[in-house]
Amino acid sequence: MMLYDFAGAPSPRRVRMYLAEKGIEVSRVEVDLRRGGQFAPGYRAINPGCTVPVLELDDGTCIAESMAICRFFEALYPEPPLFGTDATEQGLVEMWSRRAELEGYLPAADVLRNTLRSFAGRALPGRDGDVPQIPELADRGRASFARLLERLDTRLADSEFAAGPRFTVADITAFVTVEFAARAKLGIPEAYANLARWRAAVAARPSAGA
Amino acid sequence: MMLYDFAGAPSPRRVRMYLAEKGIEVSRVEVDLRRGGQFAPGYRAINPGCTVPVLELDDGTCIAESMAICRFFEALYPEPPLFGTDATEQGLVEMWSRRAELEGYLPAADVLRNTLRSFAGRALPGRDGDVPQIPELADRGRASFARLLERLDTRLADSEFAAGPRFTVADITAFVTVEFAARAKLGIPEAYANLARWRAAVAARPSAGA
Repeated sequence: MMLYDFAGAPSPRRVRMYLAEKGIEVSRVEVDLRRGGQFAPGYRAINPGCTVPVLELDDGTCIAESMAICRFFEALYPEPPLFGTDATEQGLVEMWSRRAELEGYLPAADVLRNTLRSFAGRALPGRDGDVPQIPELADRGRASFARLLERLDTRLADSEFAAGPRFTVADITAFVTVEFAARAKLGIPEAYANLARWRAAVAARPSAGA
Repeated sequence: MMLYDFAGAPSPRRVRMYLAEKGIEVSRVEVDLRRGGQFAPGYRAINPGCTVPVLELDDGTCIAESMAICRFFEALYPEPPLFGTDATEQGLVEMWSRRAELEGYLPAADVLRNTLRSFAGRALPGRDGDVPQIPELADRGRASFARLLERLDTRLADSEFAAGPRFTVADITAFVTVEFAARAKLGIPEAYANLARWRAAVAARPSAGA
């Protein structure tokens, strides 16, 4: 089994945090996204979508998408449960994980990819020069991100973690999003005390260094 | 338990197809999105995100997001499994479901919401007049959608269904996406025979009418 990883990107960080929380060790290959390693012919054979991370199984099956990789490991190693236990918790974990991703992670990525010169022509992940930037998307992304922060702060007033009393993948997605968004100068307003409390608690977990 | 639904929208259709495949009956309330029912104060209390579908449990817990609702039911009623059985299948279902959504469903929604006059100011779901349209996003959406179709057709040359030999939620997401995209005049090129075979097979299932 081999994990195709890149230390500088947020998506593989979600998987690394997940593995650290579970105590799972996996062999890794670093795909240097800064030098276009994801577009090398060898990597295209592993993932024609040219994104990282990918988990390659011993039979050659390749699983792309961070949460798909985590689901694979969750089925193999259920403890500690990071996708919820009973039906309600499983639903809430998926809901908060998707909110963090759709209303936070993707909008923050839109801000970066549609403004930085280094992403010219590559405004979507896994694309090599054929996706022009749309600067207006940065404004839309900033507004979506601000809305997610407000929502999360309200939620965290009543709940220790994003999906409930337990740390789950919803916290991993939300935490990686908040850290990644800081690169796009999307900070957390000082008034959001609940969010600040939660962020400090997650940052103090050993997995945050993964 | 109550499902907040709307017959004319693609997201709730994913849940309806899922429930039909499982043979699960749930009480429903129709939220008329064409008349702004999602912005009524009563519905905002159920889902401040103003999106449909939402599942309200008997204790008042509200689960938004189609796949979160399906995960809730999958935990309660595991048979027939629609999210995969072993670890590899679970990973592949999540991967193909996410591809269909991120590279097909969301881009098709971008095409519609950034071009139709009826979505002026409402270019994102659950937003009431504060999200301007970005016409360039329609071009990007069309290109992403075309790429997904090519990928799916290649996949379906070797696989009966999107994630493998079994019908799963990945097929539900992909099928609803293809049907929904037709509204945005995004058709399937005739050359994609595998995709046409798969689409006809899914359309023939009773759940396709849900």
